Amino acid sequence: MNIGVIGLGLIGGSFAKTIKKNTQHKVFGYDINSVTVLKAQMTNAIDGVLDENAVKDVDLLVVATNPDVFLSAVEKYLPLLKSGAIVVDFCGTKEKIVATMKLLSNTYNDLKFYGGHPMAGREFSGFDRSTSTLFAKASMILVPVNTDIFDNDFIKKFFLELGFLEVVFTTSENHDKVIAYTSQLCHIVSNAFIKNKTSQKHYGYSAGSYKDLTRVARLDSEMWSTLMLENKENLYSELCEFIDNLQEYKQALEKGDKALLKQILQEGSDIKIATDFTKSK
Amino acid sequence: MNIGVIGLGLIGGSFAKTIKKNTQHKVFGYDINSVTVLKAQMTNAIDGVLDENAVKDVDLLVVATNPDVFLSAVEKYLPLLKSGAIVVDFCGTKEKIVATMKLLSNTYNDLKFYGGHPMAGREFSGFDRSTSTLFAKASMILVPVNTDIFDNDFIKKFFLELGFLEVVFTTSENHDKVIAYTSQLCHIVSNAFIKNKTSQKHYGYSAGSYKDLTRVARLDSEMWSTLMLENKENLYSELCEFIDNLQEYKQALEKGDKALLKQILQEGSDIKIATDFTKSK
Repeated sequence: MNIGVIGLGLIGGSFAKTIKKNTQHKVFGYDINSVTVLKAQMTNAIDGVLDENAVKDVDLLVVATNPDVFLSAVEKYLPLLKSGAIVVDFCGTKEKIVATMKLLSNTYNDLKFYGGHPMAGREFSGFDRSTSTLFAKASMILVPVNTDIFDNDFIKKFFLELGFLEVVFTTSENHDKVIAYTSQLCHIVSNAFIKNKTSQKHYGYSAGSYKDLTRVARLDSEMWSTLMLENKENLYSELCEFIDNLQEYKQALEKGDKALLKQILQEGSDIKIATDFTKSK
Repeated sequence: MNIGVIGLGLIGGSFAKTIKKNTQHKVFGYDINSVTVLKAQMTNAIDGVLDENAVKDVDLLVVATNPDVFLSAVEKYLPLLKSGAIVVDFCGTKEKIVATMKLLSNTYNDLKFYGGHPMAGREFSGFDRSTSTLFAKASMILVPVNTDIFDNDFIKKFFLELGFLEVVFTTSENHDKVIAYTSQLCHIVSNAFIKNKTSQKHYGYSAGSYKDLTRVARLDSEMWSTLMLENKENLYSELCEFIDNLQEYKQALEKGDKALLKQILQEGSDIKIATDFTKSK
């Protein structure tokens, strides 16, 4: 089939490269930066440019832009899509975009849409960092809008063909609630951790635990601040719960209570072991 | 030379295996668990058992026990060591052990000691998890007691020969201050993070950032509670600073202030980039 990709950054670029590597589908790409489009063509990440002609023949249109430009990026293409074409977005929060697309499905009543979130990423951004292995064994989350079980089956097979480990169908509300913790809070914690002044002295005194904990302190502040505020109630609640958790360790240290500290640490260790599904990436 | 290793867990076992793999030195090992000693012999991780005879010929004695049994593990060997032999411990905090060894150097006045801390580890423990690659490109921290520049030069060359990237000489005070942040606080943060109830639902909704952030939530609660309480002032201070950092994100979310949240995230990202020495492991 023909696949259109809007936005050829880390995610969109990796998606295009993955399709070219693992399938026979044709990819047509667009990016607001014309140099990026040229790079994508020269490296055979795309078969051609996604323009107003090419979009008429796409079976699947993927939008991998920053969330705040999603609507402006996609709305000029919607009237041009053929009947039965499927649209998927790759933004990190789902409630706002899914609500928008539900509204638009009143205008375009044969529009099939999935709010999507590939569970993969890196601390870098841009096409130059994109790679055909980014999604290998990752989970793909999909929120269906105006689709039926045949569409769901079709889209699931497609993502598995790309190399994803599994496809999870859910609601936008559930997605945003869980992701506030599994992704957004991770980035806040890492970003806040590196602000302790001792980070300036870590060289020679740090190993894997420090490296892992601070990896995503480096982030795209524009994109993440947008995503976090779109999901602020969930994220705020997770952050408060985490700070409450930390208070227990603080109190145990304050008291110098070894038995208490050991118990608290053991509880966390037990939860980690119980929730450590080895299948997850 | 002949090297004695007391404690053949993750660290001591990996140390013995590294010596056997990367050097021609002989290794004699002891562990409180006799099955572990047998395993170490059968897998050629050691050349023989470290008993009261073997210890008389060692040039270097390494103690890789839990910190609370360090003294009882080492004190029976000290009177048996030959003159000029060097003792190194591998425990995760240094002030208490270095103070103890300074006192003991009044009794054994030709005792040369280094409080050591290899900057490497895993979320697992025990000989079965030990590996000859654990210390590859890691940093080795050493706090000298009763040694001269020739000893320092000798021990530095030895650790580099094993495959460590570098050897850092410092004081026990500085070690404990920095390590409270780069290692101990990482473990508390990871352990506290997994306690948010949403961790139960992460499967299918998590990727690299979650995996990295929760890796060391699994830990040896006995060992870590001992280490953390030995260093409680430093760790308490780092933990308070980290909680203060988090409050800023909480306030930005509460206000729904995009410009502020973006600025806070950008500051963390900038610090990460500025302190990301690519040489460090």
